[in-house]
Amino acid sequence: MFRTHTNGELTLQNLDETVTLSGWVQTIRDKGFMIWVDLRDRYGITQLVFDEDRSSKELLEQAKKLGREFVIQVTGKVIERTSKNPKIPTGEIEILVERLNLLNASELPPFTIEDETDGGEELRMKYRYLDIRRNPVKDKLVFRHKMAQKVRNYLSDKGFIEVETPVLIKSTPEGARDFVVPSRMNPGQFYALPQSPQTFKQLLMVGGMDRYFQIVKCFRDEDLRADRQPEFTQIDCEMAFVEQEDVLEIFEGMTASLLKEISGKDFGKFPRMTFNEAMKKYGNDKPDIRFGMEFVELNGLVKGKDFKIFDDAELVVGINVEGCAEYTRKQIDALIDWVKRPQIGASGMVWIKYQHDGVVTSSVNKFYSEEDLRIVAETFSAKPGDLMFIMSGDANKVRTQLSALRMELGNQLGLRKGDEFAPLWVVDFPLLEWDEETGRYHAMHHPFTSPKPEDITLLDTEPGKARANAYDLVLNGNEIGGGSVRIFNKDLQSKMFGLLGFTKEEAEAQFGFLMNAFKYGAPPHAGLAFGFDRLVAILDGNEVIRDYIAFPKNNSGRDVMIDAPSPIANAQLDELYLKVETKE
Amino acid sequence: MFRTHTNGELTLQNLDETVTLSGWVQTIRDKGFMIWVDLRDRYGITQLVFDEDRSSKELLEQAKKLGREFVIQVTGKVIERTSKNPKIPTGEIEILVERLNLLNASELPPFTIEDETDGGEELRMKYRYLDIRRNPVKDKLVFRHKMAQKVRNYLSDKGFIEVETPVLIKSTPEGARDFVVPSRMNPGQFYALPQSPQTFKQLLMVGGMDRYFQIVKCFRDEDLRADRQPEFTQIDCEMAFVEQEDVLEIFEGMTASLLKEISGKDFGKFPRMTFNEAMKKYGNDKPDIRFGMEFVELNGLVKGKDFKIFDDAELVVGINVEGCAEYTRKQIDALIDWVKRPQIGASGMVWIKYQHDGVVTSSVNKFYSEEDLRIVAETFSAKPGDLMFIMSGDANKVRTQLSALRMELGNQLGLRKGDEFAPLWVVDFPLLEWDEETGRYHAMHHPFTSPKPEDITLLDTEPGKARANAYDLVLNGNEIGGGSVRIFNKDLQSKMFGLLGFTKEEAEAQFGFLMNAFKYGAPPHAGLAFGFDRLVAILDGNEVIRDYIAFPKNNSGRDVMIDAPSPIANAQLDELYLKVETKE
Repeated sequence: MFRTHTNGELTLQNLDETVTLSGWVQTIRDKGFMIWVDLRDRYGITQLVFDEDRSSKELLEQAKKLGREFVIQVTGKVIERTSKNPKIPTGEIEILVERLNLLNASELPPFTIEDETDGGEELRMKYRYLDIRRNPVKDKLVFRHKMAQKVRNYLSDKGFIEVETPVLIKSTPEGARDFVVPSRMNPGQFYALPQSPQTFKQLLMVGGMDRYFQIVKCFRDEDLRADRQPEFTQIDCEMAFVEQEDVLEIFEGMTASLLKEISGKDFGKFPRMTFNEAMKKYGNDKPDIRFGMEFVELNGLVKGKDFKIFDDAELVVGINVEGCAEYTRKQIDALIDWVKRPQIGASGMVWIKYQHDGVVTSSVNKFYSEEDLRIVAETFSAKPGDLMFIMSGDANKVRTQLSALRMELGNQLGLRKGDEFAPLWVVDFPLLEWDEETGRYHAMHHPFTSPKPEDITLLDTEPGKARANAYDLVLNGNEIGGGSVRIFNKDLQSKMFGLLGFTKEEAEAQFGFLMNAFKYGAPPHAGLAFGFDRLVAILDGNEVIRDYIAFPKNNSGRDVMIDAPSPIANAQLDELYLKVETKE
Repeated sequence: MFRTHTNGELTLQNLDETVTLSGWVQTIRDKGFMIWVDLRDRYGITQLVFDEDRSSKELLEQAKKLGREFVIQVTGKVIERTSKNPKIPTGEIEILVERLNLLNASELPPFTIEDETDGGEELRMKYRYLDIRRNPVKDKLVFRHKMAQKVRNYLSDKGFIEVETPVLIKSTPEGARDFVVPSRMNPGQFYALPQSPQTFKQLLMVGGMDRYFQIVKCFRDEDLRADRQPEFTQIDCEMAFVEQEDVLEIFEGMTASLLKEISGKDFGKFPRMTFNEAMKKYGNDKPDIRFGMEFVELNGLVKGKDFKIFDDAELVVGINVEGCAEYTRKQIDALIDWVKRPQIGASGMVWIKYQHDGVVTSSVNKFYSEEDLRIVAETFSAKPGDLMFIMSGDANKVRTQLSALRMELGNQLGLRKGDEFAPLWVVDFPLLEWDEETGRYHAMHHPFTSPKPEDITLLDTEPGKARANAYDLVLNGNEIGGGSVRIFNKDLQSKMFGLLGFTKEEAEAQFGFLMNAFKYGAPPHAGLAFGFDRLVAILDGNEVIRDYIAFPKNNSGRDVMIDAPSPIANAQLDELYLKVETKE
């Protein structure tokens, strides 16, 4: 037996017991006549002691040869420590080693296996298996597991069935971001890896499996933004014989149970906000409502005072930053520079200070009297000591810019606390988006999303105004899940395809397969999917999803640890009837 | 709200309640003045009634227009049935419908949605979403879900962490059966889909994650036998700081908990058998021990009686088939023909009957006296009424042939009962297999499998005799899981690669990556993997794994429902720098 206990469990309760432990050498302190070794495993650290008086000379010699990350097994007696370490559960005891068995030596690791390591990200990714030994990485993987278990048990208890849908599916003509997989048995033919199990889950609904879920890998071959992965994990769900309300209730319950597990708090009913309200109040369809700074629109108030920038703007809108009136000119300029960066793209920003002494001043004193400014400040519900920022321009653009500033200030002011949670449903999304470039409508969610019943007539008159039975679950400023009530009526579905500019043939080629299934008694159904990597990160008070993936890929889609992707042998290509033609 | 109850839950307890139900029309019986409709959903069937006296004329008209598989919603009152159906939970009540809402019509389905359907397999696969509506299919998917949940909870409770390993990995030079995936971002380069997460789980052990599991899709692009799938699911497990005994204990416990769930029985300690014993007693390394018919070797007894076939044979071995002495000549000939089929390849078979009247007779009376035969019968422990079959020839071949006969007789005699379970560990597998064709050793399990410590010296002298620390879990004649203690010592691993005929360079190219990880303190570790599709099928008393996969592929690796794989657009190939070159 390699161990009687783990390195996280021995306490004074075990005094005088003879135990066997195994693990990695974390640190060695060699005082010559005494040697202390910290032994580490997944569960914790236990201090080992070897000493001249109580240990054999051979044992001491053996211990002196140990190095960092050596794998050892020791047997010895649990004794009380003279200098205790209250920071760890095993801090009151140590093991007086009687037998030491070197299981495996280790070369010096390329970075220190400590909570704070000296290894840079690239190096740690290359040696990910060593990085996983560190608590901050290991704990994230354990946390992910616990969340997955919790989700599975919650949904199973509610009668959901986890069904595995296929990974080798069909590539569709518009599946431009599909990974494809050549088939040896079917020369010249390809499978595709699923971007989501959307079609299959809808087929399961047609099949009567009325509560489906799956924690499932999905794939997208696209240029990767910093925090995207070519393979990612979804909690994918679908229900039949339900309305939007039923879906929200189930998944609100699921999310609340996760939040309760983490925070101990009951979250009650989650607030809801329409898409329009979210855009108006926060300039964003996934607002972080852990803090205020709601948008205040000022068109009626500030126009007509000869300040041309405001007069010409479609929208003048601002936020009140509480308690920041004492920001220096330098601090304010830094923020103005921040919004002028190309990523944000604002041309500038007006500020108003409501000073502690009651004076209201601004960067546009030339155009506005103190009385004008005071009225504006009142509109913001500002108090003495507050600082207001106002931006102007094209409504959509300025909202996006001000939203970015709001989030930046939230970060700077520490208002976005990792251990605080503010879930929010955003509902009533537009059904369609007009794409200037292609000159046609796109489905905001996907082509199977149902319009709100009361908006169906708008499809004939003003389709752009129709709202969808679509919903997003937002947590701390991140979309963690989204879904919709689906169309299950063939005629309405045909109309949708028409609106989206598909010819009958195109619709048939891309979706005929699902449409065919709809002929045989499709039930009303609705669903949603959570981005599991992101959900886990946010629940753990973090936003970097890569940290929560055991073996992530880098921004070029490469696994630098195993060096994938890589060229394959010509023999293998021949078997697949393929030829690589890279142009130099 | 689409329903207040499901179609499986209403009983006399709900009498007089007004309820709303939704589902599919299973059957319609139209008596003119009265119409009964069976309404079906995932949970059961509820009878609806419309009648001239109690329903409006419009409602009756509406009901008359319904067809099979129409999706409807009804509201009505729970009333007591006059003729009850004790076979279903809702059989004592029916719903007197007050309101009928047609949710979706259905074309006539291509086969009947009944437990016994008129649809052939191909048709049902094409319309799999309709097949899933049938109880026998649906129940299997629900059963699979329950088993997965049980496994996950069992292992989580034991401290195992489910870690998702990547699906896009590296193709290895010998990965001849790898599916490969071209990368758009890395022109001319390919990922491979994992045949198993073997490397990653060993890296997780190096990473200190000492109890790992994953229910995970794996992929193999190979010619498909009847019951193989290009994508299949494993319960993949690995543990560190353990010996073989620890692994067997955990997974015996897991399997016993599944068996208990299904059968209500406690299975205690699973029996164990060495590979050699299994081969000797059953001619098979995965014996079905639900029934006896153990092999009896007869070399010492039957040779030297001038029966040349036995005299020339390396092995003469037989089985005793209890209570079959009254088999007719025709029945016996049919079995002899069966073993002579090319798939089995025996040249013939000797039989001995121990008649009820005490006489012992045989097909080789010319060579053996009744006294000779009686001694043979005694060696078989045969009783009056038993029938013995004896085969002879090359030891390995004859064991395989006799094993096939034993299984066939087990099936014919109803000894292989689906609801009886006989788990068995087979241990002490040979480490290496000699491959006549390539003239070198192959790893019987895989190259990372550890020899038994006491057999390590054999590697230098008689490697073929070395036994491995490898083990299979067998259930009802099927290997449901297998694994091994891994080598974690670099030098021993190098020696293994040498024995397997790898040059240093080849070993480096294929396994260098894991070997590199082994430099940094690899702990002792061991693991195993269950074939989840097969496990579920066998636990459900079935052996056809395809039935337990929601959307399976056929023997050509095709999904006939979605018609995948299929050709892809040239534009897509161009983006991947690929050209298809199929020779006509």
